[in-house]
Amino acid sequence: MAYFKLPSGVRDVLPDECRRLMGVKEKLKERFLQSGFEFVETAGLEYYDAYAGIKSPVAQTRLFKMTDYDGSLIVLRPDMTLACARIAAAKLKSAARLCYFSEVYDFSARGNSQREVEQAGVEIFGERGAFADAYAVAFAADCLRAAGLDNFIVDIGHVGFFKGLLEEVGLDEERREELRLYVNAKDGVNTELLLKKYGSGGRAEEAFLALPSLFGGAEVLDEAEKLTSNAGALAALAHLKKVYGYLKEMGYENVVSFDLGTVKSLSYYSGMVFTGLADGVGAPVLSGGRYDRLAAEFGKDLSAVGFAIGLTRVLSALERKDPVPAVRQAPAVILCKEGGEAQGYRAYLKMLKEGRACTLLTDADAWPADRGGEKYVATAEGVQKC
Amino acid sequence: MAYFKLPSGVRDVLPDECRRLMGVKEKLKERFLQSGFEFVETAGLEYYDAYAGIKSPVAQTRLFKMTDYDGSLIVLRPDMTLACARIAAAKLKSAARLCYFSEVYDFSARGNSQREVEQAGVEIFGERGAFADAYAVAFAADCLRAAGLDNFIVDIGHVGFFKGLLEEVGLDEERREELRLYVNAKDGVNTELLLKKYGSGGRAEEAFLALPSLFGGAEVLDEAEKLTSNAGALAALAHLKKVYGYLKEMGYENVVSFDLGTVKSLSYYSGMVFTGLADGVGAPVLSGGRYDRLAAEFGKDLSAVGFAIGLTRVLSALERKDPVPAVRQAPAVILCKEGGEAQGYRAYLKMLKEGRACTLLTDADAWPADRGGEKYVATAEGVQKC
Repeated sequence: MAYFKLPSGVRDVLPDECRRLMGVKEKLKERFLQSGFEFVETAGLEYYDAYAGIKSPVAQTRLFKMTDYDGSLIVLRPDMTLACARIAAAKLKSAARLCYFSEVYDFSARGNSQREVEQAGVEIFGERGAFADAYAVAFAADCLRAAGLDNFIVDIGHVGFFKGLLEEVGLDEERREELRLYVNAKDGVNTELLLKKYGSGGRAEEAFLALPSLFGGAEVLDEAEKLTSNAGALAALAHLKKVYGYLKEMGYENVVSFDLGTVKSLSYYSGMVFTGLADGVGAPVLSGGRYDRLAAEFGKDLSAVGFAIGLTRVLSALERKDPVPAVRQAPAVILCKEGGEAQGYRAYLKMLKEGRACTLLTDADAWPADRGGEKYVATAEGVQKC
Repeated sequence: MAYFKLPSGVRDVLPDECRRLMGVKEKLKERFLQSGFEFVETAGLEYYDAYAGIKSPVAQTRLFKMTDYDGSLIVLRPDMTLACARIAAAKLKSAARLCYFSEVYDFSARGNSQREVEQAGVEIFGERGAFADAYAVAFAADCLRAAGLDNFIVDIGHVGFFKGLLEEVGLDEERREELRLYVNAKDGVNTELLLKKYGSGGRAEEAFLALPSLFGGAEVLDEAEKLTSNAGALAALAHLKKVYGYLKEMGYENVVSFDLGTVKSLSYYSGMVFTGLADGVGAPVLSGGRYDRLAAEFGKDLSAVGFAIGLTRVLSALERKDPVPAVRQAPAVILCKEGGEAQGYRAYLKMLKEGRACTLLTDADAWPADRGGEKYVATAEGVQKC
């Protein structure tokens, strides 16, 4: 077998791409640490029951499941927000600001989505209110910029608006989820069919039909206000206006937009939600929101807001922006001929001490001719540049 | 449920430990890149068949196995050397020097061994001979030193010595593996019982009984020479003497020792093997060796040598060396009171621009009093240090 296939939805990151990936991670790490976040690495395997027992479970179909030697059901880490909430609630004494680089796994991902996704993310615990939300959005934008993107937008919504509208129509749990899927997909036809068949008519239905087009600048919030008198929905809009006020004051009005028709699938979001979109990448590069009731499921009441960046998608966006791979200073190469090993090793050490990168090798065929970089040959007589 | 247990053998790395871990990884990354290695990230899931079909398989009992949606058997990445050999042989045009930070999974690990292990490692492809082996050992020592260890030893052996002795006794495959386990565990009693029962007697058996005590300085190689006349075993010893000669010349004689009774379980090793031992840590912090026949299993004939460092064990060793946690410059904290958000945000930006770390927050309770760092309060009137 000359080629070894991988299961669908997972991949190797080879050296050229990995160099760019490490560069992005380096920039984000710097940004996270400078803003007071602390890194965690969470267990790659968790009990199925840990998440099945909470009110915001991950859909069973998303989990990679295995039976452990003792018969218990274990899963691959499906989500970092859940893992961080678990840690913040159960293992840390005080409210934390956590950040991470981590893989998450989604058994059900197909098509454009990978089943193994590498994310960089932050979770802020213990902060609530419009300014904390504005800060999270601003920091998300800062991080995308730090990663090298300049053509992106952070699109803001609020689960309270959708939930408020839902209160006004008499749908059971299953229909609500169906409706959410249609609205999230901006599928006006099925939204209308579903409401005609199961809805109780009235103003809220019109609002649902308008939802898919409720995106754009802050004026969207004013438009939405006219569509409902539901208290929860109006409170959500008032909150977003306050968030927008702060964002304007902080100088971010040009990198944010609003979309009240984005209704994310992860059921733990409780307030503002947001999505980062980059030019030329069809899927979000960033996703986040407020989840004030999640940590309580793990034993401690903590308000929280956070986001995750999809690193592979960021690389795609960067590739579009600057498709020529970054030129890298190739390491110098010292080729040791028989008898020149000690001389070569000394020259190599000297270069490292000078802060230069250097590859030491004995087989001339082992290093590709196209790698550039200075070349030296070490023999018993000494080291010669060539 | 106030506490969420994890499956056995996996763990969360919480902020204090993660800070030390990131520090070690940073140092190793620098060291790897400076010596011309290139990072890869390999798929976390692989087909069971990819490894079942090669001559150096991972034992079935070590694999975390799952059934994929199409019925195929998939496994969690069990080993990075296998993954790198697969990539070097099947996906890269030229011989490579690869490095990685990665988790590997061993279903069967119990006791002191974790089932999820984070490793940093390097793999050198296309280099052969005693000097390349000496360089790998020297670089391993450099990496342990770069990680912060100063009390360690790299213990060198050679699979050819054991294999040579095996040729001299008439044991079947199963008994050979049993013998390997006994010798590796330095279990003289069972080694002797097995040889008495199944062996053909003679000089090689005496050599096997002497194996567990064949460790120490380079004089061990001379002692071992007297025990056998097997050509393969003697060639292995001659090779190690040559490697030692280079290591002395390079100035590493004080950080290496020899152990001919170390017979590793991973069946892909073909020549010199080595193990890093650090003061106060019962298990190896580093493990590596030469595996010249592995890449050919994936379609390309490439000689290779490499090693992996167990990062958690390195942290344990560092903890013993300096149990007081490193003092960290705590980020400054700016607490925004109602109305002081914009002022606070400007002060935060200013600090970041000055290269300082700063946490912005609105809830005084959210940040623990014991974190140190300068404290500021932002109100509509301005930002005050307190």
